[in-house]
Amino acid sequence: MALLVAMARHWDAEPWLERFRRLGGDMEILDARKPYDAAAVTHAAVWKPDPGMLAGLPNLRAIFNLGAGVDALLADKTLPGVPLYRIIDPDLTSRMTEWVTLQVLFHFRQMPDYLAQQARAAWEQLDQPGAHEVRVGILGMGVLGRDCAEVLKRIGFQVAGWSRSGAAVEGFEMFGGADGLAPFLARTDILVVLLPLTETTRGILDRKLFAGLARDGRLPGPVLINAGRGGLQVEADILAALDDGTLAGASIDVFETEPLPADNPLWPHPRLVLTPHVAADSTPEGLVAGIVRDIAAFERGETLPNLVDRATGY
Amino acid sequence: MALLVAMARHWDAEPWLERFRRLGGDMEILDARKPYDAAAVTHAAVWKPDPGMLAGLPNLRAIFNLGAGVDALLADKTLPGVPLYRIIDPDLTSRMTEWVTLQVLFHFRQMPDYLAQQARAAWEQLDQPGAHEVRVGILGMGVLGRDCAEVLKRIGFQVAGWSRSGAAVEGFEMFGGADGLAPFLARTDILVVLLPLTETTRGILDRKLFAGLARDGRLPGPVLINAGRGGLQVEADILAALDDGTLAGASIDVFETEPLPADNPLWPHPRLVLTPHVAADSTPEGLVAGIVRDIAAFERGETLPNLVDRATGY
Repeated sequence: MALLVAMARHWDAEPWLERFRRLGGDMEILDARKPYDAAAVTHAAVWKPDPGMLAGLPNLRAIFNLGAGVDALLADKTLPGVPLYRIIDPDLTSRMTEWVTLQVLFHFRQMPDYLAQQARAAWEQLDQPGAHEVRVGILGMGVLGRDCAEVLKRIGFQVAGWSRSGAAVEGFEMFGGADGLAPFLARTDILVVLLPLTETTRGILDRKLFAGLARDGRLPGPVLINAGRGGLQVEADILAALDDGTLAGASIDVFETEPLPADNPLWPHPRLVLTPHVAADSTPEGLVAGIVRDIAAFERGETLPNLVDRATGY
Repeated sequence: MALLVAMARHWDAEPWLERFRRLGGDMEILDARKPYDAAAVTHAAVWKPDPGMLAGLPNLRAIFNLGAGVDALLADKTLPGVPLYRIIDPDLTSRMTEWVTLQVLFHFRQMPDYLAQQARAAWEQLDQPGAHEVRVGILGMGVLGRDCAEVLKRIGFQVAGWSRSGAAVEGFEMFGGADGLAPFLARTDILVVLLPLTETTRGILDRKLFAGLARDGRLPGPVLINAGRGGLQVEADILAALDDGTLAGASIDVFETEPLPADNPLWPHPRLVLTPHVAADSTPEGLVAGIVRDIAAFERGETLPNLVDRATGY
């Protein structure tokens, strides 16, 4: 067995190669940037490989993506048709819940205003609803969304979810499909976005969607939290919505272009919190150990829950 | 029955009088700032009344404090010796947990650094431990402390508690008494303070205590979160500890002097988050309804869990 480690050429693959060599047992570890025997490759571990990097591997059995999102990978028309797996690890889920909970509480407890008051040494107590008076909506109720939903419900928020299927999730009001989106938005004060990027979801976070959020809530206005993918959002619409009050605030971890260019007008907006795609960074050691376990399970013929359905894109 | 509503003279008692009149059923509601028949007063609802305001009430049966902290009240040597109750309501507990969870996550997820980066349009991903690698210590494991502990544990932190007695709390490692303080601090990366202000706890948050916090954690340094009482802290020591790295960050909601004067050097410190004593503001309606219920239960001879022990001060 030989594992090909393939990443975009501008990435530093060396630390990843080193981890796979250390944790990979008797698997041979191959570096896609150097010459190697294509016929020897049985598995590939990849992160945004350059298009074509995985073509021409006659004995490839499976591809393992080093993250949860496979949109960049599926855009490569030369991608071999073997089983494709993505990362769903508990550490990544836990980190996403940390970030989402932090950002929801940050806006809910009016921290943009309190930090601005602190900057001018002003002592002013703002009217503050309780969590039980505020409705959070989770757009995308997969593994990550459900974990966030549980913690936010424990804190006291009214939490509902939306998913493509609208399948029941115990303990939460669920909405589903295109028809369910408008009623879901209409009852949502704080929108948490954890959708995958697919042909259907690209650009879904636009002016029209923001205008459908609740206008009758206890907060000054609706809040957007996006930790899904940058391609979900129309950034010009986010800025316009923040400026005209359609959105009262936003926290964004993902962008149409990453790194976000220094002259991008999102950076200085006072109602916007930006983090540089760090919401759910997992530790490299945890990811690599998980993939080594997945490869072993795959070779034993086990069914892995993180198999990507290429039709839906996640 | 007649309820005397007594507050510091510089406070606006009018909205409180109005709520008690609306929610108090057939109780007569008396305003301590105006002439009234002292012999008629059977109960008092108070918030930081001026010293002596409650003296000379021959038929007073009980005092109900409009908050959790009774330190200011107990400092009044003329306070009648009738049963004294404080507020422990679920809404107040829930709000405290919101604020504490927010502030713990804010420092843990390095938001002071990310906000500073955003201000200069800098995209830089910082090394981030997972919550399971970070130890939170709750100094004061009463009703509020236990609720915070539960939510922080669910998020993934290693949570332990300290209380005067060190009594067991299911699901948490507990430390107790003066002897238990040093080992508790030595295993704590993020210290959450929810102590009452008593003769023993006044000024406990000083340079010596900060120096006892863990130095071997995964965060850049220890973090202080104080939502208890301003009198617990030595503010000059907090500033010095932040400046010399003994503390890496702090969030403070309570101060030695409130409102915090505009020229106080705490305001502009870049590693310090200040909020104006709003961590656990409850809604006035909720508080008043709770006190009306408590008075009825007291008159039925029921035992109320929120009776203040004047020996311990809470």
